[in-house]
Amino acid sequence: MNIQDIIKELSISTESKIVLLVADGVGDLPSKEGKTTLEYANTPNLDELAARSVCGLTDPISRGITPGSGPAHVSLFGYDPIKCQIGRGVLEALGIDIELTKDDLACRGNFATIDNNGLITDRRAGRISTETNQKMCSLLQESINEIDGVKVIIKPGKEHRFVVVFRGKELEDGISDADPQLTGKKIKYAEALRPESKESVRIVNQFIDKALEALKEQHPANAVLLRGIAKHPGLPSMNELFKLKPAAIATYPMYRGLAKLVGMDVVDTGETIADEFVALKDNYQQYDFFYVHIKKTDSYGEDGNYDAKVKIIEELDGCIPQLLELNPDVIAITGDHSTPAALSAHSWHPNPFLLYSRYIRVDEVKHFSENEFVRGGLGRFPAMEAIPLMLANALKLNKYGA
Amino acid sequence: MNIQDIIKELSISTESKIVLLVADGVGDLPSKEGKTTLEYANTPNLDELAARSVCGLTDPISRGITPGSGPAHVSLFGYDPIKCQIGRGVLEALGIDIELTKDDLACRGNFATIDNNGLITDRRAGRISTETNQKMCSLLQESINEIDGVKVIIKPGKEHRFVVVFRGKELEDGISDADPQLTGKKIKYAEALRPESKESVRIVNQFIDKALEALKEQHPANAVLLRGIAKHPGLPSMNELFKLKPAAIATYPMYRGLAKLVGMDVVDTGETIADEFVALKDNYQQYDFFYVHIKKTDSYGEDGNYDAKVKIIEELDGCIPQLLELNPDVIAITGDHSTPAALSAHSWHPNPFLLYSRYIRVDEVKHFSENEFVRGGLGRFPAMEAIPLMLANALKLNKYGA
Repeated sequence: MNIQDIIKELSISTESKIVLLVADGVGDLPSKEGKTTLEYANTPNLDELAARSVCGLTDPISRGITPGSGPAHVSLFGYDPIKCQIGRGVLEALGIDIELTKDDLACRGNFATIDNNGLITDRRAGRISTETNQKMCSLLQESINEIDGVKVIIKPGKEHRFVVVFRGKELEDGISDADPQLTGKKIKYAEALRPESKESVRIVNQFIDKALEALKEQHPANAVLLRGIAKHPGLPSMNELFKLKPAAIATYPMYRGLAKLVGMDVVDTGETIADEFVALKDNYQQYDFFYVHIKKTDSYGEDGNYDAKVKIIEELDGCIPQLLELNPDVIAITGDHSTPAALSAHSWHPNPFLLYSRYIRVDEVKHFSENEFVRGGLGRFPAMEAIPLMLANALKLNKYGA
Repeated sequence: MNIQDIIKELSISTESKIVLLVADGVGDLPSKEGKTTLEYANTPNLDELAARSVCGLTDPISRGITPGSGPAHVSLFGYDPIKCQIGRGVLEALGIDIELTKDDLACRGNFATIDNNGLITDRRAGRISTETNQKMCSLLQESINEIDGVKVIIKPGKEHRFVVVFRGKELEDGISDADPQLTGKKIKYAEALRPESKESVRIVNQFIDKALEALKEQHPANAVLLRGIAKHPGLPSMNELFKLKPAAIATYPMYRGLAKLVGMDVVDTGETIADEFVALKDNYQQYDFFYVHIKKTDSYGEDGNYDAKVKIIEELDGCIPQLLELNPDVIAITGDHSTPAALSAHSWHPNPFLLYSRYIRVDEVKHFSENEFVRGGLGRFPAMEAIPLMLANALKLNKYGA
């Protein structure tokens, strides 16, 4: 028995409502005027809420580890990000609304261009349009429906990106990327990283050959590169683990996919932050846990666009009253990982974490920012402990032992 | 090898003395004037000590987990509270001063009332008086002394509560409650939750049948309900793990029982906090580790009696000079869990933890309170790490590795 088994045993279903608001990549590094984007932004609503909350900092995985969106979210959803690894292919598949089964092996694909010598000249086939991509995927699907009894499902993403799902009994992951990652190189075939995956590798490589054959007259999309070949992780649902009835509000496919993976219902939402809070309000009676995902804090961080990140933080701040109006029993506001504009990338820095409920020891924090939260009453903790903390504050966890 | 094996290997016996003072449930939530009971109470002695100590906050189990007294104490005594689980029946038995052996299976019992159709009409037999309870237990004990070679020990608790101990080789736990938890239902028999416990279940269910037979002419206590059927945990002693010679000073049976489970000597004490410090002084030469338990901080918390909790904290504060007079090498003052008066129950909030020795980095904390301790030099840590910290400060831990 470990702590997670115990939380599963202690959790109970109640009427109380929890909102987990994730401003993706919101944590930053000091830059303009020596301030982080959160420090620079004018955030009266977040500050006011922080002043009557208890705050802290979370590590998504462990100090120094920069997580991808998968492990960062898995952790925030209460799963052990070391044990529950989610392959990139699976994330991509879920992100374009492919309903995966536990038998599935999923891969990210790029359409690419190769020359007459079979050398890659463009790893993204000149970023073909999404329409061209859709045509190419139809072409592939027509000629490749099944390989040795394994069903093959091909779906377009945006521009040059697509997803292949292999559906069949006894498929195994532990397979290398089939992508040399460089132009001027030949197409690469997949390799087995463990003996059990040899048969699956054979299927994947047959797919590559069949795709090259089907695409040989096409230009510029005349080749495929496969990456992130991964099996569905088969996670228990948040309902099973925590007795929650969870809903996800997210504008980007991958996050909706992540939410589905842990058994959340994904509800309809418009594109803006204000729209997302409207979706929250519209679905508020039907669920008791809400994951609201704000993407653009991360996007502008990745772009290295400090000013745009400041603006989106201010836009989020402007929507906080919409959230408070609903009067949830528990509010948590945090990031999944930091994406400092100065790095234009995810980073290992801890996330500000705000917790509001009627059962907290309000601390001395007065502003929503990374450095103020260092003094917060929650201290610094693994993001994986956020869910038990929210459950406790919603009175959804029974006592452990007598 | 894990950290606990390492601590066992490193610990040495020395002359230095450690006092662990546990104010049960002392942690609170802000209430009167926005203050916790610790913040509201006038505690000059605790504050003065805090100002020359290093402070922090502990989680008994993990963030968000509300512990019962069992796991909360096990953790403070340096044992892993996830691995070392103590069943409810064992705690109840300890609570009424039954001397348990490692062969024992202990259960909580309720006297209950059933009607002519065998349906439960009152799960507590109208809360019979403790005297009636004592008579019923004598009656049961007279007719049931032994079942198939297993000794049966029946002891009254308060009102309708009693404890049954089955003592015999090869008894196993993993047994369901024999209690439907509802009126209008039939008596429930125990069931085996794992194959190994089948034989023990047979003994338990024979006891139920014999009890029904013995009580059939009694009213209202004509039936029994058994819960929390649990085996003695057989923990290694604190002497074995930490080379300590520990003594317990506690006014409530359950805490004396918990202390015995980890091999402490339980010494005589009067009822007041001042009496407990006298007992500490009287036994100070014979031991090197003292667990002093103050119960009423928890009791008043459970009662939701903020003012009485404040008063008992002030009473404790008044006794601190008695403790300081002994000049222990290490003093730790903490709670086992929080019991906020506003919740009238145990809670998941961390415990203030004060550590005094001559080898500390004194921090900025000036007052003994939950929120002041957030800024403490010890930070926030699992309560299980308190014992190694005390051992180190008593110079009772050798270096790890070369």
